Amino acid sequence: MSSVKDVAQLAGVAVGTVSRVINNSGAVKPETRRKVEEAIRTLQYVPNEVARNFKMQKSKTVALLLPSIWHPFFSELAYYIEDELDLAGFKLMLCNSGGRPEKELYYLEMLQQNKVAGIVGITYNDVEHMVRTDIPIVSIDRHFDKTITCVTSDNYEGGRLALRELVKAGSTKPAFMGSRTELFSETMNRRDGFADEAEALGVEYVIYEKPDPVVDEDAYYEEFLERHRDIDGVFAITDMFAAKYIERAKKLGIRVPEDVRVIGYDGIQDHAYFHPVLSTIRQPVEEMARMTIQLLFKKIEGTEIEQETYRLPVTFRPGETT
Amino acid sequence: MSSVKDVAQLAGVAVGTVSRVINNSGAVKPETRRKVEEAIRTLQYVPNEVARNFKMQKSKTVALLLPSIWHPFFSELAYYIEDELDLAGFKLMLCNSGGRPEKELYYLEMLQQNKVAGIVGITYNDVEHMVRTDIPIVSIDRHFDKTITCVTSDNYEGGRLALRELVKAGSTKPAFMGSRTELFSETMNRRDGFADEAEALGVEYVIYEKPDPVVDEDAYYEEFLERHRDIDGVFAITDMFAAKYIERAKKLGIRVPEDVRVIGYDGIQDHAYFHPVLSTIRQPVEEMARMTIQLLFKKIEGTEIEQETYRLPVTFRPGETT
Repeated sequence: MSSVKDVAQLAGVAVGTVSRVINNSGAVKPETRRKVEEAIRTLQYVPNEVARNFKMQKSKTVALLLPSIWHPFFSELAYYIEDELDLAGFKLMLCNSGGRPEKELYYLEMLQQNKVAGIVGITYNDVEHMVRTDIPIVSIDRHFDKTITCVTSDNYEGGRLALRELVKAGSTKPAFMGSRTELFSETMNRRDGFADEAEALGVEYVIYEKPDPVVDEDAYYEEFLERHRDIDGVFAITDMFAAKYIERAKKLGIRVPEDVRVIGYDGIQDHAYFHPVLSTIRQPVEEMARMTIQLLFKKIEGTEIEQETYRLPVTFRPGETT
Repeated sequence: MSSVKDVAQLAGVAVGTVSRVINNSGAVKPETRRKVEEAIRTLQYVPNEVARNFKMQKSKTVALLLPSIWHPFFSELAYYIEDELDLAGFKLMLCNSGGRPEKELYYLEMLQQNKVAGIVGITYNDVEHMVRTDIPIVSIDRHFDKTITCVTSDNYEGGRLALRELVKAGSTKPAFMGSRTELFSETMNRRDGFADEAEALGVEYVIYEKPDPVVDEDAYYEEFLERHRDIDGVFAITDMFAAKYIERAKKLGIRVPEDVRVIGYDGIQDHAYFHPVLSTIRQPVEEMARMTIQLLFKKIEGTEIEQETYRLPVTFRPGETT
């Protein structure tokens, strides 16, 4: 059976163009459309269920709820989400919902009114009572007590990996530094993986956590730096936590990585022009984004989804801090 | 006359909430709605033309066309644009159009079909022939040969300011480093301001430009570093150009700012956790975003706009590179 890629190749166009012709969405030059339609006939290509169901949907817009598009991790994620939606002729509605739960509720209403076809949510609000299992929502990182499909990176393995890399870099007393949300979040597994791996290897370790969000940053880092003078490694729950720690440690004469090795989580630096380049557990952002949209499409067409949580493998990206 | 702020204060809610009640958009708790309506009656508040006209518009969605949301300057801009739209009950559709002119054309089609109420475009494609003066489009930076309202920072004054700051920091032979698009772009004024101010002050200077986009970055910076060994200051057309120059210069043993002072343009670093913290000409991103949306609203309601180009003042933000 021919695929959309075969059609694209024969017509000499991009996959996205074929998709736009099939879905009758987006600007396609008449001549290009003709070439694609010819290729479809020649190859007897049958657009798949997803594509055909899409035609019957009222809305071809997906809402993306992010705490803030300004954050580099979220803007990278949004970039790939838009790209994956575009391939299927869908458009992206963007909402910065940070600290504004009523905005999230509004998009849930739009979903009920079929004004958006689905929602991708990175929410930290308690909207649990609002959502049913069968409505087209896919969450990233946030778990929603198992009613909502969730795509996340393998936070637990990431925590284990960070511990091993700190030890490999010479750390004998590493610390985990993070924050805890009231509701369960997948990101908490970073700490658990770190702690479990330390126990397994018999490494002495420290867990330092405060309630999320950390409002008084000065107090947060001061307390850590005062109480835990003897640590020689830090696994920070995010790259930003790592960067903030390093900046403050430097002022006290603590050298990174000579005195303290530091590993972050996320991989927000996509180039090496600003320093320190963090050693970090890199999330596969592009894969997470594309998988999220593919799962959302399944939910939109009513296909059952096998797993509740999809955890994508992470990698250690060495930088200047280990 | 009472303002929306007075209503918000009396009702004890945020301005955005009042806006959602007036525009009948977004989720508002019944009790909150009642409080706001009471405050409106008490203060005899009359929603302005914009708000009332909005009710009659079919679409309450605005499309934002960006080269890439992944770039920190654009993600900051998108953040404030979404916020300003939300205050008026509008939603944001996001499109990464970088290198894909057909995506931009598609949104212009949506505008003609009234599927979006307006477009904010940071486009570098030649879509000039597609657009008329009276359709609701506001451009950022790109000039469109004067048919489209454009909001930009005062690039010319920014260039002058950069030259003066380089001289103040001890530079006697500064260089401008940038790229040139084929079509006129407001950002070209950065070079002109720099050159004019150097002439006015009798300072020897260098202009280094290549066609945009710079594909072979290695060749671009190598040629500059080889040809212009005697310069002691660099004004780069963007912060990223500055950061890339500094990284390469460092490898040749050139110290910044001791040997060469460097100033960028944009102000993409919103914190000081990664180094070098660039000395830069800071664009007033929030003001640009909010003004862009206010001008777009005027165009949507058919109000004539006084100016073709709105240039907002920039400031010098000293960092570690001068």
